[in-house]
Amino acid sequence: MKRIKLTVAYDGTVYCGWQIQPQVPTIESVLNDTLSRILREDIQVIGASRTDAGVHALGNVAVFDTETPIPPDRISYAVNPHLPDDIRIISSCQAADDFHPRFCDSRKTYEYRIQTGPSLLPTSRRYSHWLPGRPDIAAMQEAGAYIVGTHDFKSFCAAGAQVKTTVRTVLSVDVEEGELLPGFHEILIRVSGEGFLYNMVRIIVGTMLKAGFGVWPPEHVKTIIEGRDRTLAGETVPARGLCLKGIEYL
Amino acid sequence: MKRIKLTVAYDGTVYCGWQIQPQVPTIESVLNDTLSRILREDIQVIGASRTDAGVHALGNVAVFDTETPIPPDRISYAVNPHLPDDIRIISSCQAADDFHPRFCDSRKTYEYRIQTGPSLLPTSRRYSHWLPGRPDIAAMQEAGAYIVGTHDFKSFCAAGAQVKTTVRTVLSVDVEEGELLPGFHEILIRVSGEGFLYNMVRIIVGTMLKAGFGVWPPEHVKTIIEGRDRTLAGETVPARGLCLKGIEYL
Repeated sequence: MKRIKLTVAYDGTVYCGWQIQPQVPTIESVLNDTLSRILREDIQVIGASRTDAGVHALGNVAVFDTETPIPPDRISYAVNPHLPDDIRIISSCQAADDFHPRFCDSRKTYEYRIQTGPSLLPTSRRYSHWLPGRPDIAAMQEAGAYIVGTHDFKSFCAAGAQVKTTVRTVLSVDVEEGELLPGFHEILIRVSGEGFLYNMVRIIVGTMLKAGFGVWPPEHVKTIIEGRDRTLAGETVPARGLCLKGIEYL
Repeated sequence: MKRIKLTVAYDGTVYCGWQIQPQVPTIESVLNDTLSRILREDIQVIGASRTDAGVHALGNVAVFDTETPIPPDRISYAVNPHLPDDIRIISSCQAADDFHPRFCDSRKTYEYRIQTGPSLLPTSRRYSHWLPGRPDIAAMQEAGAYIVGTHDFKSFCAAGAQVKTTVRTVLSVDVEEGELLPGFHEILIRVSGEGFLYNMVRIIVGTMLKAGFGVWPPEHVKTIIEGRDRTLAGETVPARGLCLKGIEYL
């Protein structure tokens, strides 16, 4: 018996998220079905991040146990031709028998894309949130700086989520802007942390946008954190702009 | 009667190219149908570049004549909500009555994307050509330098194309490479010119790749140009990597 670690990329557009649910397509169910068929075993993967419906990934992580004689680093090559083209195993390797992708210390990086301008460009539409107006990038960056650190992020957690603690550590928040066409820009917000609450990155981005559009001064983020109340923070921005860039195990 | 100039962006994945053909979806037919319905006139656009099936655009140009009372710069806003989300009018304005998008001097810029690495990333699959191996970027750039200039590009024109002359002027060829993930790179080839033959950009890229993989030394491009024979040049790379970035009228 070997434990295999997969790095998985997907375009989440047509999936109801990572986690198996009856009657709907999910990343986890496609992986389980395809791995079970190709390795001729009953395979059940454990995912590091149970991304929401419509969220994308370049580097989610999943593990499973197998008796297959296929060398660990060749499993990706054996399985990829049988996956739909919106899911790919980036790499496969053997992991320690006790490695668990959610209970080992890690650093996760998410990227959120916003496209601004008079319309949503067809080539951006699957991977970007669209805003007609252009927020102030410096104000967004300043707001993001207040997010960095170890805080109680209760204000940035979807109401009703069941967690033991809402304290998390955010390691960095960076904002960049590039021009796609005259009058059309793309904003990339990169957030790294040791763990995130449900919808936390999307609420952070929604809150930074409030600062970017001058609704709040950037330092108001401190008050939002201290208030420990979801209604104080900004909106949860749409899933399609979000991509789990990668997970680094420490 | 006013002549209106549109700048048009599209994801060409599901279209059989720009030009109207019976029974199949094309960009031109969607624009004609939608403009005719919204402006309540029989509209027939004339496109600057009749892109092939599967090719994308951020800035193709089309013109049409209309009696509509909608101000020229508002036509994009009136029409966009009625277009499918893979076609958008980036901007609209009034043009001179004798402006013709194909017979006026212009500079066109195309971008071609190649993603390298062990598999085609799901989020790149609609807009990139995939190659498992990584070509030498400096050799590709060197080969591209031989393309720049006014030459007879008969070797770079799809066989059977009907044109008066195969002489064209290429203004610049640039190659950049960026890392998407460890082991996964994206190569962007940007080609600008005063006009292109049928499949010319895709054959230029296929030829540069031969130099990038060491099949030919970069200077062999001179021999290919001098030979005036399509069979001397590289393959026509797939349509999905190609995007018409923009057209500048001089």
